Amino acid sequence: MLKGYTLPRTPRGTSSLAPKPPWHYVGNALAVEYEVNAIAAAAFLPEGLELASSRCAAYFIEWQYSSENDEEYLDPVRSQYHETIILLSAQFEGAPVSYCPFIWVDQDVSLMRGLIQGWPKQMGSTWITRAYDLPSKANPVVGPGGKFGATLSVKDRRLIEAQVTLCELTDSLPSPNFARAVNVRYFPELVAGKHGKAAVNELVQLKSRDIMVSPIWKGEAKMEIFDHPYIELPDLRPTAVIAGYRFSFALTVDDLIHLRDLCSYDLG
Amino acid sequence: MLKGYTLPRTPRGTSSLAPKPPWHYVGNALAVEYEVNAIAAAAFLPEGLELASSRCAAYFIEWQYSSENDEEYLDPVRSQYHETIILLSAQFEGAPVSYCPFIWVDQDVSLMRGLIQGWPKQMGSTWITRAYDLPSKANPVVGPGGKFGATLSVKDRRLIEAQVTLCELTDSLPSPNFARAVNVRYFPELVAGKHGKAAVNELVQLKSRDIMVSPIWKGEAKMEIFDHPYIELPDLRPTAVIAGYRFSFALTVDDLIHLRDLCSYDLG
Amino acid sequence: MLKGYTLPRTPRGTSSLAPKPPWHYVGNALAVEYEVNAIAAAAFLPEGLELASSRCAAYFIEWQYSSENDEEYLDPVRSQYHETIILLSAQFEGAPVSYCPFIWVDQDVSLMRGLIQGWPKQMGSTWITRAYDLPSKANPVVGPGGKFGATLSVKDRRLIEAQVTLCELTDSLPSPNFARAVNVRYFPELVAGKHGKAAVNELVQLKSRDIMVSPIWKGEAKMEIFDHPYIELPDLRPTAVIAGYRFSFALTVDDLIHLRDLCSYDLG
Amino acid sequence: MLKGYTLPRTPRGTSSLAPKPPWHYVGNALAVEYEVNAIAAAAFLPEGLELASSRCAAYFIEWQYSSENDEEYLDPVRSQYHETIILLSAQFEGAPVSYCPFIWVDQDVSLMRGLIQGWPKQMGSTWITRAYDLPSKANPVVGPGGKFGATLSVKDRRLIEAQVTLCELTDSLPSPNFARAVNVRYFPELVAGKHGKAAVNELVQLKSRDIMVSPIWKGEAKMEIFDHPYIELPDLRPTAVIAGYRFSFALTVDDLIHLRDLCSYDLG
Repeated sequence: MLKGYTLPRTPRGTSSLAPKPPWHYVGNALAVEYEVNAIAAAAFLPEGLELASSRCAAYFIEWQYSSENDEEYLDPVRSQYHETIILLSAQFEGAPVSYCPFIWVDQDVSLMRGLIQGWPKQMGSTWITRAYDLPSKANPVVGPGGKFGATLSVKDRRLIEAQVTLCELTDSLPSPNFARAVNVRYFPELVAGKHGKAAVNELVQLKSRDIMVSPIWKGEAKMEIFDHPYIELPDLRPTAVIAGYRFSFALTVDDLIHLRDLCSYDLG
Repeated sequence: MLKGYTLPRTPRGTSSLAPKPPWHYVGNALAVEYEVNAIAAAAFLPEGLELASSRCAAYFIEWQYSSENDEEYLDPVRSQYHETIILLSAQFEGAPVSYCPFIWVDQDVSLMRGLIQGWPKQMGSTWITRAYDLPSKANPVVGPGGKFGATLSVKDRRLIEAQVTLCELTDSLPSPNFARAVNVRYFPELVAGKHGKAAVNELVQLKSRDIMVSPIWKGEAKMEIFDHPYIELPDLRPTAVIAGYRFSFALTVDDLIHLRDLCSYDLG
Repeated sequence: MLKGYTLPRTPRGTSSLAPKPPWHYVGNALAVEYEVNAIAAAAFLPEGLELASSRCAAYFIEWQYSSENDEEYLDPVRSQYHETIILLSAQFEGAPVSYCPFIWVDQDVSLMRGLIQGWPKQMGSTWITRAYDLPSKANPVVGPGGKFGATLSVKDRRLIEAQVTLCELTDSLPSPNFARAVNVRYFPELVAGKHGKAAVNELVQLKSRDIMVSPIWKGEAKMEIFDHPYIELPDLRPTAVIAGYRFSFALTVDDLIHLRDLCSYDLG
Repeated sequence: MLKGYTLPRTPRGTSSLAPKPPWHYVGNALAVEYEVNAIAAAAFLPEGLELASSRCAAYFIEWQYSSENDEEYLDPVRSQYHETIILLSAQFEGAPVSYCPFIWVDQDVSLMRGLIQGWPKQMGSTWITRAYDLPSKANPVVGPGGKFGATLSVKDRRLIEAQVTLCELTDSLPSPNFARAVNVRYFPELVAGKHGKAAVNELVQLKSRDIMVSPIWKGEAKMEIFDHPYIELPDLRPTAVIAGYRFSFALTVDDLIHLRDLCSYDLG
């Protein structure tokens, strides 16, 4: 009998792209809060969600990951990846949630784990300024005046440039954030005549546990989203940039909340 | 209403990782036919398939792809990719089919199209000797004595090295081949308590059309599969190498044959 | 005694990044002839060269390489690379030559061989449409109406997009071309007080042999060079695009013509 | 007049691969001290150096870099890179020095800066476990028991795997170290008949300033160097592994000590 949490499923089950949860994550994040055109943002929401406000956030994260027993971080090509996430402010049945229209990572293992949670992951190249514990002109301070940059490029085109200048510690994470993120698990049909239908089309809510957050630095930010011939991210271009953040966080994922089956037929 | 064949689904539907079929492909292939341990091979087959023989084939392919209207080959980072495929000889209800235990590509678009067809795609680095229409010491002839190499590396470890020396034209494609490939479409659950169940677990058969094949060169081959700490490919190491091939082929995919729903519960 | 043509030099001399010449090359090229602002172009020429005309050419090439005895093309990660080259029309002591202000490759071995010849190589990502010998919507014809694209991206920013539509065969290669390319071999000093001086600063001319050229297709072209914050390529943006080309060529390099030592002191 | 510290030299001088020094660096290092066969190690030393002991060190470093004025760390694809360095214990005129037979980086800017200093840089893929300031199963502690891994892969073959388990703080850096590293600046000739000669062949010693070192963790280590068909690193395979280290350091480079011109003729 074949074993494994995802394809490829094999005799011993050690070849699967993503192993069985729990999945443990720790990352350094740079984030930018900004405003977008509310009508444009609302058009990105799936059935079941409504726009809560024109407030968005972009997160740029340098992650390290391990499954429960494999200590993938000791073979770090299996463990480390970069991620850019865009979150919109939405509500589900009156409760505030966030929704992710776009997300890019740079490792297949992360892409697969993401699809299972409904994150609409694609491959992209994210770079984020690092902090080191030594004074150097090669290195911003993690403190007032420290400047951090992040960029996203997808298929050889630069899509986002962001920069954050730290100012002071704060108690609040950027908003919208991951805590109540809602996604759509989606797996299409390929049989002829069914291309507009989906085998899986579910509104789900992330459920993470053992969340740890470092001290949170807040400051000024700027961010530019560049034109693109077919990726619709420029529709979510900042009309105003509110603030920037830098912090670390850790969490574990081994569950998901099923909110609602979406109509799987006649998707157009 | 959101549009798009895959995630991300967006207002205009142009951001999806994989667009709606048909998907058109053309590729140059280097292939190696070989024998494996039959007991080892049988252990890789899903429910519903039986091993037909110990004959395997490895394909190394340099692809170019386009969807119906987008001419992605004019922005070739969207279109070109490399692929390594392993095929086993199986049968389904007495009919000969092939089955793919492992496949690696180097572009996310290809990975997504593959998952939808049940190909167990992961990211890997495949390199294949190219032929050019000029005599040079940098270039094998496409003819008797021409030597072609291929390598696969996954997460910074080299997994396969193959070499083919062309000898003569043949009328037969390598066996097993793609024509009747059977895969498993598989999409797992993440809700706690259901990690051993799958939302989609279907035995399917590829259905391609408009298949074109170039003249087929056949010759001698050698192939080595290296040890690996967790990918089970070395279980399918050659016990004997039979022959090598080089040819080009083109095909279009916009359909799939549903063979059987597999048990989605208690996957172990 | 250490051996090897370049660093690292080692006991057996097999570890050098670039082996001893001859170096054999074969490639498929897409090229665009265009006009630039003559004053801008002249400003890129080194001491000893004068601008001959405002005519430029951009070449996008998919190369395969081998040294004399190593058959690197059988381990193609050692052999294959992509290249984007910009050539200006210049003259040296009254004779027509070309000069390369910018060139990008995607393999270190090619970068090192280039530096030794004076090519100002940097790493960049070049993609070029491929032709296959089969009709497919994934594939242009190598003939009238066949459309080919090429792109260059450097450090996650797209710098060039080009497209060529083939029309007819021609007897002439694009101009300027490689045949009489002049470069500057340049190796700086690092000792304090000498940063403005160079240990090597020589005007040289390429010398290749055994040049083979395929039939040459010519047609219409378009090309765009995008803004960049520090790479000065946009100074050489097309004022008019003249023609596009597609052809293959092969050549061998194991010599160089020393034209003139340039002043190595007070480089400013 | 063309400007720029390295090729390409251009009208404004902003396109050079490496800008004029000073170059500022900060990095996190994982290091392994080990013993090698002394005869094998001695064979790697250039003219002018003698082996001091069979003690070697391998360093795996995640660097961030900036030039004096450009704040490249804010566009981090220009600034960040990984490096694997092997150092031998040597002496020059009786004084203890280190010598680098092999070094790999993953950015062209770093490769160019290295060649100018005599580092024999090639491109390679280095991965190093990261530490984050939060407890997580995805993350080792920077303290007793914390386990860190590092790997090197070159042209799709894994060459080194190392693992360090931290035990205690120490006052001593690993030995040999960078402080007195001696390299060979080397730039070959290509003119026919001179392939065995070099335009530059100088024994030099690194000179860095403003060196800062973090607290230094020391512990147990293991390291494996794998077979390779042509890179001679396996000649320097550990006969015994002594200790492992983790620390951060920062430094600035804008000078070099010229020790001796090496014979440039008849290099064999």
